[in-house]
Amino acid sequence: MDKIPILRMGNFLLVTIQVDLYDRLALDLEADLVQMVNKTSSRGVLIDISAVSIVDSFMGRIIGNIASMSKILDAETVVVGMQPAVAITLIELGLPLKGVHTALNVERGMNLLKSMIGSDIQDGEETDDDDTFAE
Amino acid sequence: MDKIPILRMGNFLLVTIQVDLYDRLALDLEADLVQMVNKTSSRGVLIDISAVSIVDSFMGRIIGNIASMSKILDAETVVVGMQPAVAITLIELGLPLKGVHTALNVERGMNLLKSMIGSDIQDGEETDDDDTFAE
Repeated sequence: MDKIPILRMGNFLLVTIQVDLYDRLALDLEADLVQMVNKTSSRGVLIDISAVSIVDSFMGRIIGNIASMSKILDAETVVVGMQPAVAITLIELGLPLKGVHTALNVERGMNLLKSMIGSDIQDGEETDDDDTFAE
Repeated sequence: MDKIPILRMGNFLLVTIQVDLYDRLALDLEADLVQMVNKTSSRGVLIDISAVSIVDSFMGRIIGNIASMSKILDAETVVVGMQPAVAITLIELGLPLKGVHTALNVERGMNLLKSMIGSDIQDGEETDDDDTFAE
């Protein structure tokens, strides 16, 4: 199990980080995510880090990279589920995650993504995908 | 990182299995999931095993257990993203995952869950939660 799975949910991609992001795994995740954004025409990326209890500057940089890469491909990135201790560590490390949106949990993150790209969906070709989430 | 995170998405819970389910981790997941179903009044559990490339009888049993426990609490379980090799192994091991619904990917799994519990949502108290997914 040397790959982090990327789940497609309508217009969004969801990634749950459960393992330590050592170098190769992180670079693979970056590459996979960007390719997946391209392939699926996704408009948003949700990264759940609720299982992450230890964070270092490398991981902070990887998350920033993913957000920047996705942004160029017209997808917003939202990091969700951050533990309080991780937030404390990030700020103490001097990594305020600039350019990365955050939300408390997946549901709020998804709402945030929808509000950010909301106006585009109404008349886009992705309307069919959105039915997946509609009642 | 010794816990598998459980993500709440509206009426459903989503679990992505990315690591080997050794004994304690699997039992913790069972317990956490059942408590979460109870706490959040969830109607469905989606288990993504797209990152699982090796499966044994223990894991097959755990998935069956989760499905049975959730069923008693009135939640359906759908296993999604199974790799072809895993399906082959499960059948060769004599574990046809009876009582567990399966779907090709998360989107189809979510549609399956919705079709299974669909009629209940319309007039349930969970209607507000569903707005999360509606446009």
